[in-house]
Amino acid sequence: MPKLWDSTVEEHRRTVHTAILDTTAALVGEHGLAVNMSQIAQHVGIGRATLYKYFPDVEAILVAWHERQVTEHLDQLAQAAAATEDAGERLQAVLSTYLALSSTGRDHGGHAGGQPPGHGTELTMALHHSQHMTPARQRLHDLVTHVITQAADAGIARADVPPAELATYCLHALAAAAALPSPAARQRLLEVTQAGLLPQR
Amino acid sequence: MPKLWDSTVEEHRRTVHTAILDTTAALVGEHGLAVNMSQIAQHVGIGRATLYKYFPDVEAILVAWHERQVTEHLDQLAQAAAATEDAGERLQAVLSTYLALSSTGRDHGGHAGGQPPGHGTELTMALHHSQHMTPARQRLHDLVTHVITQAADAGIARADVPPAELATYCLHALAAAAALPSPAARQRLLEVTQAGLLPQR
Repeated sequence: MPKLWDSTVEEHRRTVHTAILDTTAALVGEHGLAVNMSQIAQHVGIGRATLYKYFPDVEAILVAWHERQVTEHLDQLAQAAAATEDAGERLQAVLSTYLALSSTGRDHGGHAGGQPPGHGTELTMALHHSQHMTPARQRLHDLVTHVITQAADAGIARADVPPAELATYCLHALAAAAALPSPAARQRLLEVTQAGLLPQR
Repeated sequence: MPKLWDSTVEEHRRTVHTAILDTTAALVGEHGLAVNMSQIAQHVGIGRATLYKYFPDVEAILVAWHERQVTEHLDQLAQAAAATEDAGERLQAVLSTYLALSSTGRDHGGHAGGQPPGHGTELTMALHHSQHMTPARQRLHDLVTHVITQAADAGIARADVPPAELATYCLHALAAAAALPSPAARQRLLEVTQAGLLPQR
């Protein structure tokens, strides 16, 4: 039964792949970026040679982990966009969902004022902001661009700036959520960011 | 002449320190974050043990390098702020200077659409956005907060959101400049970001 065998092998591969991503994220969250392939292999419970069959280096694992995260977020954003027909409500729903995703985990371990949070947040932020336009990141940008285009067509978003540029602005501005201490502050960030999108007075 | 000797030693230390930062930035720009202490020591032309007397790891070198960059940028922002008495002009001057600093090097090696730029830009972005509130980064935030406070007092910036939060918003939104392909697009980013700061209609 080669088919069953194949699916078992494939399933095993996927389980190991997932374990590598999860373990690496946990290790970086605990120790920062100074994590090496040997430590990861040891914590996953596989040999170092096996790990190298999956990924060439730590950076590649982090990129894959980030890609998985963004893909999960994309699903939630697409759902938020599909939940309403109104262009204004849709824009609001997508931006506030993105804001919530950007601030995940921020209420725990509170980061008021100048205190740095754990390595985990730092890493997420760094990856989120790196200029790597991965496929998932590109789809995220496309989704926001699309929603802004609809809002501009409806006359409720400015039409004098290309929607793709407004999407870049939104994604960067809303990422500030991770640096803000309270839900109220993040709500104000959403309002301020949206004010930048309004048609010019 | 112990004084002369001291100053020579101090000068030597500073020269090596500078060389470590410059060399590491160049190596990361070329090879990405997969750079180790041995490679850095070799390229600086010092022993590995000597390098460890200056920095405990690569991350510490990158943080110091970033701190030096932000400090240089701060001087330029402070000059821009001091050049005018008018609160509105001052805000405009500080934000456009920050925008220019955020997009340094962007016109070379052009990064249109989804193409990732070199590792150098990526690293700068990652560090810029990491939640590490280093002393220089804190001073940058304080400077922008101060200028926004003055603009709010003058009635030309919104007063319903704390100036420190507006500063966080501005710094994140303007960092999008590094992802925008042209000077015209970055100018539009500045306008959109400033629109978010206006008093509510």
